[in-house]
Amino acid sequence: MKEEMSPLCDSGIARSLQGMGAVKPSKKMGEQTIAFDTLPRVVGAYTIVGKIENEGPLSGSFHQVITDNLWGENSWEKAEAKMMGVAVEEAIKAAGWAKKDVDVFLAGDLLNQNITADYTARKLGLPFLGLFGACSTMAEGLIIASILVDGHFAHRVVASASSHHETAERQFRFPTELGVQRPMSAQWTVTGVGAAAVASPEVVSESDKKSRNRISITHATIGKVIDLGVKDSADMGSAMAPAVTHTILRHLQDLNRTMDDYDLIVSGDLGHVGHKVSQQLLREEGLEPGENYTDCGILIFDQNKQDTHAGGSGCGCSATVLLGHLLKKMQEGVYRRILFVGSGALFSSTSFQQGESIPGIGHAVVLESAYSS
Amino acid sequence: MKEEMSPLCDSGIARSLQGMGAVKPSKKMGEQTIAFDTLPRVVGAYTIVGKIENEGPLSGSFHQVITDNLWGENSWEKAEAKMMGVAVEEAIKAAGWAKKDVDVFLAGDLLNQNITADYTARKLGLPFLGLFGACSTMAEGLIIASILVDGHFAHRVVASASSHHETAERQFRFPTELGVQRPMSAQWTVTGVGAAAVASPEVVSESDKKSRNRISITHATIGKVIDLGVKDSADMGSAMAPAVTHTILRHLQDLNRTMDDYDLIVSGDLGHVGHKVSQQLLREEGLEPGENYTDCGILIFDQNKQDTHAGGSGCGCSATVLLGHLLKKMQEGVYRRILFVGSGALFSSTSFQQGESIPGIGHAVVLESAYSS
Repeated sequence: MKEEMSPLCDSGIARSLQGMGAVKPSKKMGEQTIAFDTLPRVVGAYTIVGKIENEGPLSGSFHQVITDNLWGENSWEKAEAKMMGVAVEEAIKAAGWAKKDVDVFLAGDLLNQNITADYTARKLGLPFLGLFGACSTMAEGLIIASILVDGHFAHRVVASASSHHETAERQFRFPTELGVQRPMSAQWTVTGVGAAAVASPEVVSESDKKSRNRISITHATIGKVIDLGVKDSADMGSAMAPAVTHTILRHLQDLNRTMDDYDLIVSGDLGHVGHKVSQQLLREEGLEPGENYTDCGILIFDQNKQDTHAGGSGCGCSATVLLGHLLKKMQEGVYRRILFVGSGALFSSTSFQQGESIPGIGHAVVLESAYSS
Repeated sequence: MKEEMSPLCDSGIARSLQGMGAVKPSKKMGEQTIAFDTLPRVVGAYTIVGKIENEGPLSGSFHQVITDNLWGENSWEKAEAKMMGVAVEEAIKAAGWAKKDVDVFLAGDLLNQNITADYTARKLGLPFLGLFGACSTMAEGLIIASILVDGHFAHRVVASASSHHETAERQFRFPTELGVQRPMSAQWTVTGVGAAAVASPEVVSESDKKSRNRISITHATIGKVIDLGVKDSADMGSAMAPAVTHTILRHLQDLNRTMDDYDLIVSGDLGHVGHKVSQQLLREEGLEPGENYTDCGILIFDQNKQDTHAGGSGCGCSATVLLGHLLKKMQEGVYRRILFVGSGALFSSTSFQQGESIPGIGHAVVLESAYSS
């Protein structure tokens, strides 16, 4: 029973009336989009990045900076898990919660079998659902967190995603110690983790409900896997651009919105190369992406001053730019409504070595600040 | 057109309705359990296994058997993705759905970066959320499918999980061509895939609602990651047993039930060794596990006649035993209420080589047949 793309007011009223005791209405809008009636709240966020990430244009936006990518551990993998553990604990504190109050912990990362998330979940001792969306994992986590909260399955959910330059490079490409030259289309895997505490309205205090700092999640669009045949693991932006573009188009159609309805539409980690591909694909569909269309991988590094080539990538790129930089800008009133489209390249070194092309995915989340009402 | 705070036009009405006292109750029961009021339905299921899996005690229970683990592909990885693709398409047919009607596809597997699920999602072209719960993935998929359907976010969801003996062995341990001797505590990774079509009541026909074949999902318990220090990747049953036991205890406590309230409590893939550990741990907590406590890894192979040592393992083990064998037994009235506890060992070869122990997780799902009412 797919809903028609009728004016949203009608379905809104219908939903409210049905809520009086008749059949519970669907929260599905159009083909791939979900509307969250209860407006799940992002009540706490925490980000940790490495040194180079804090030397770019967003310097000072993050909650914590580590200057050594080992962070006192004896392996980069353990350092990444330590980063996620600290970020989650701090996000819980920022929300004013106790750890024991958290109903579900959602997390994923880039490492084989999600070991960063797994070992963090072991340390935290919280009910855990592991996710894998490659670099779209932060968006996937926010979507499932909102679903859990909006559907009354949970009151307090924490979602986290991370990446680490050294752990990712040695797993997917070459160990960084080798010093292999990288093509200009390659992106720089961000060392970073983001964690967000998402709450149901029932557990948000009356004063917080009216706070100018409040951020709500209003809609999500679950993406499809799209693969136009890119086989170059040093050009993942181009591999992900079709899926991201498809999700943006589907989202706008499902909600009968235009790109101008957003102060910012920001993809996860298409980088400079993938962003151009996505702009072109949008133009081919008759849309003219404006200044309000950008990418976390573009925002995090300075292409001219930092040796990061086509921009940032990794789960930690979009997670830290959203939960560090963009959330603050929303709370300051700079952005009222953002469409955040996490982008993921769904490949492994095995599939790559077997000659497979790289499929991409894009998951979209709408965030609104207090200034939007 | 600038819209106001979303959902777009219903805010006033919805809020005044809530003001009338219609605040939705939480679906959370106790600490880790969720109750599904609408009773999501498993309306279609399909399983595919390899030759050896169909030579065991459950021979004839599965929907399809492949006699060659390459199944006409040029790599085992591609064969595994082909298996998942066929299983999902057949589960959709079994549900009487068209592929385009599926709202969300949930899937995961054991391979690095979930490539079986990723490439299947690419082929299917459905909105996709990737999951990673190691061998607990079928349970995790059924939980999130039920959440999506029960929370009115989707009407039709397909969840799938797979494993393949050769792809898993060469990734986690040794390529099977090496012929490395396996200790008796080792389990045999099942070549198998299961796919389940989960529907909201709104899309189940009146006749199906009364069918004796109907299977409902009534509750779920989201597990915690628990690690008592097992470091032997050839004894994963022992590594997972504490987490499975913890989830069973938590589930019974949250719902104020006893083990006798279930016709069957079946873990995913503890195997003979892990099952004994779990029985012992239950006894230490004052419970006496009876004949109704077993394990999919024990059920699928004949320990005496098949060279499979401590039993079956892999996402495909619990997925095929549940969706092939157990679902049929429920429809025949043999079992009315089952507690299915998917078990996962959350490690990678990297974490293993770095000397980490193996954390485990158990996710529980309650399934009830028509005979339970």
